[in-house]
Amino acid sequence: MVPTVEWKDGVVRLLDQSRLPTQVEFLDCRDYRAVAQAIRELKVRGAPAIGVTAAMGVALGAHGVAASDYDAFAKAVGEICDHLAASRPTAVNLFWAIARMKRKMATLKTQPIPQIKAELVRESQAILDEDIALCKAMGTEGAHVIGDGQTVLTHCNAGALATAGYGTALGVIRAAWEQGKKIHVIADETRPVLQGARLTAWELMQDKIPVTLITDNMAGSLMRQGKIQVCVVGADRIAANGDVANKIGTYSVAVLARAHGIPFYVAAPYSTIDLATKTGADIPIEERNPLEVTSIHGSHPVAPEGVAVYNPAFDVTPAEFVTGIITERGIFKPGDLAGVFGAERPAG
Amino acid sequence: MVPTVEWKDGVVRLLDQSRLPTQVEFLDCRDYRAVAQAIRELKVRGAPAIGVTAAMGVALGAHGVAASDYDAFAKAVGEICDHLAASRPTAVNLFWAIARMKRKMATLKTQPIPQIKAELVRESQAILDEDIALCKAMGTEGAHVIGDGQTVLTHCNAGALATAGYGTALGVIRAAWEQGKKIHVIADETRPVLQGARLTAWELMQDKIPVTLITDNMAGSLMRQGKIQVCVVGADRIAANGDVANKIGTYSVAVLARAHGIPFYVAAPYSTIDLATKTGADIPIEERNPLEVTSIHGSHPVAPEGVAVYNPAFDVTPAEFVTGIITERGIFKPGDLAGVFGAERPAG
Repeated sequence: MVPTVEWKDGVVRLLDQSRLPTQVEFLDCRDYRAVAQAIRELKVRGAPAIGVTAAMGVALGAHGVAASDYDAFAKAVGEICDHLAASRPTAVNLFWAIARMKRKMATLKTQPIPQIKAELVRESQAILDEDIALCKAMGTEGAHVIGDGQTVLTHCNAGALATAGYGTALGVIRAAWEQGKKIHVIADETRPVLQGARLTAWELMQDKIPVTLITDNMAGSLMRQGKIQVCVVGADRIAANGDVANKIGTYSVAVLARAHGIPFYVAAPYSTIDLATKTGADIPIEERNPLEVTSIHGSHPVAPEGVAVYNPAFDVTPAEFVTGIITERGIFKPGDLAGVFGAERPAG
Repeated sequence: MVPTVEWKDGVVRLLDQSRLPTQVEFLDCRDYRAVAQAIRELKVRGAPAIGVTAAMGVALGAHGVAASDYDAFAKAVGEICDHLAASRPTAVNLFWAIARMKRKMATLKTQPIPQIKAELVRESQAILDEDIALCKAMGTEGAHVIGDGQTVLTHCNAGALATAGYGTALGVIRAAWEQGKKIHVIADETRPVLQGARLTAWELMQDKIPVTLITDNMAGSLMRQGKIQVCVVGADRIAANGDVANKIGTYSVAVLARAHGIPFYVAAPYSTIDLATKTGADIPIEERNPLEVTSIHGSHPVAPEGVAVYNPAFDVTPAEFVTGIITERGIFKPGDLAGVFGAERPAG
């Protein structure tokens, strides 16, 4: 698997996901502004991957700060953090990773600036390494929800590409596959940006995991025909009450799954659980450029010029539709998250 | 409104819907095979429009038959009918229109061949004229299901473009608008062929009826937010028990509507009601080229080469999800169709 994001000789190197699957290209960011822009333009996407990338963006930005005393340094890094935090509003991992980098910096207050800079790079690398470990742990905890011979539906891309590697929802699927289960994946293409068609199908084909691509509006018909046994998706933010914000269309999948008696699981690491957000109603939902809907890849028009468009990037699936949330520590009922993850959370 | 299909000086002229909305071009079919090909390639689509076009294809084909005795003529026309009937499997209006043309021919058995040819052209024109009248009647009967100030969701294109003019589902919407109601239309883009984005949005904008385009996977989220008050869609075939075959994704809309307590109406003329088909399970569902899913307009790839695809063009919405079927004679419960339309139906 090609790395989604890595720190390489003072450069943040990103796999440019906006060009997949037709081109496999890397983008070298030498400036934190380029990192923020890459997040904004979906060159890197997926809540955990955004978190890791933002952390590396903070390290990269800190590297370029010329200040020689801590207060001036911290002020400059704070501004860099604000700039990165403004790139996208919904995925909480972005804010979580930035907050963690700031906390790390504060613990280094008495160190020489060059040392702080080096430690921030190490911290961002630690976030990356942890992310992969978390995904693997989620896979171990969640693989049993997919039975041998079953077909699993997933929406968008919650795969290796959405994380530092291995994936959340696709990590669970990958783990089931690695256990030798004969499974089949149905991938929703996930309009408007087609992460399912472009990324999930590509990623699974690379690993030779059987996948069939459908348009988003076919899932209900497949469920009715008994062709889907379980759904597993990722999350961009999970509120304290267990409501799940994820890629637009996730809510429809959840309602359809409920109507057909099909279990619906969400896979997400602790950094996606946002106990400071009470319910899904409090999660800001990003609305993106109408061009994503009226054209393919911004260039190929598919709708009349000037048509009005509604283009929310996410929706909220109420906790009541979620069978279980697969985390690195086990599978929990949405309503139990606050109790399990509440005690030891830093203030953020 | 530009005509979807017309008979013009011995030529069947079709608006090439595969090129809308970027190009408004007409296709002149001088041969019945070109008519069948246009139907197969979705240059004309929508159940009632397919019926009218096929009838004109029969008249065009008959025109070119050189036979001088009735039996030879009827045999040749029969083969033309078979060729046209093989163009697409799901929309019953195709078979209905062809059967009607054959019945007409049989009643003219004793007439001179040139006279029969002229009468077949007139019959196809009658089918076209009736289709527009049926759509207007449906509009009159159904307009009241959309209240003043309401937002109505529609899927695919069941508009003037799907008929000889005015439309079925969009005919109902158009009638509500013409009554002076302030309504708003949400158009599902309707992947893979994007009839909602390319045709419904275009058609409504031409008439200045307010429309907002969404991707198919956004409908559920809008319903949850209380932004949709009623759904109206068309149909390609309605079975005797009221099960409705329509564009893929219709079933998902129906399930979502039910889950949110939103009424779900189907608008269709009598020629779409197929009492010879007992239930939806007996309706053949066309599977189309994977290229429709893996690319946009066959040329712009959006998925990895060689990915497996499932591409059914239609799904079946069970009668229990349908609030009412809007016909030219009124609105009926799906289960009442057989009683209402059964008595006077010709054998077909």
